Amino acid sequence: MADLEANKQTVRAYYERAFNEGDPEGAVAAHLGSKYIQHNPQAADGPEAFIGFVKWYRGEFPQLSVEIKRMIAEGDLVVTHGVIKTSPEDRGTAAVDIFRLEDGKIVEHWDVLQPVPETAANDNTMF
Amino acid sequence: MADLEANKQTVRAYYERAFNEGDPEGAVAAHLGSKYIQHNPQAADGPEAFIGFVKWYRGEFPQLSVEIKRMIAEGDLVVTHGVIKTSPEDRGTAAVDIFRLEDGKIVEHWDVLQPVPETAANDNTMF
Repeated sequence: MADLEANKQTVRAYYERAFNEGDPEGAVAAHLGSKYIQHNPQAADGPEAFIGFVKWYRGEFPQLSVEIKRMIAEGDLVVTHGVIKTSPEDRGTAAVDIFRLEDGKIVEHWDVLQPVPETAANDNTMF
Repeated sequence: MADLEANKQTVRAYYERAFNEGDPEGAVAAHLGSKYIQHNPQAADGPEAFIGFVKWYRGEFPQLSVEIKRMIAEGDLVVTHGVIKTSPEDRGTAAVDIFRLEDGKIVEHWDVLQPVPETAANDNTMF
């Protein structure tokens, strides 16, 4: 169980340092392994594409924020479920990110993204 | 660990029996608990909305299929990451579903859905 908690802390630190603190280079240097296999269809493999994306995204939306609502870890995988907002007024985008770690470092990433709709058939929120 | 494996088997059986076998009533009877808290913004709480949705969806797309690519379980949560296809030719929709279980029965559900795009910046697929 210690590894699962350590992996979750690593993923949270990587994600929040990059997007909320605007330091993707620091996040990559601290938490990425020797490769970064990317399954987000808009991103190329490797850390450079990630760094470039975060810089562009925060440039477009200086109030960008990510909030992790829950994390689920098993084996070498960590799942985050949360919301990305381009501003405090943004309804946001629901996001699940899945990270694979080797020796405590992030080496692979998948995600699924869906805009939060204005109305819903239940009162429970997407989170 | 036995509970995690049992919970994963329950979620897989629920999902595949409803969508692939077209038996949402059976899936609900076998695997749902005394409530079904729904976070999918298009669905109301309770099993009836789920049964109705599956029936409508398979009515529209008789070749509908779901394929679970990976599962991640921790505590009372089970995550599935997979693809929903409306026909064998469909590129599909990437889906993450998160289920919470109580006493081995499903009682709460979240999901995030994203169409698989025609092209991608990497060769790794969304899975």
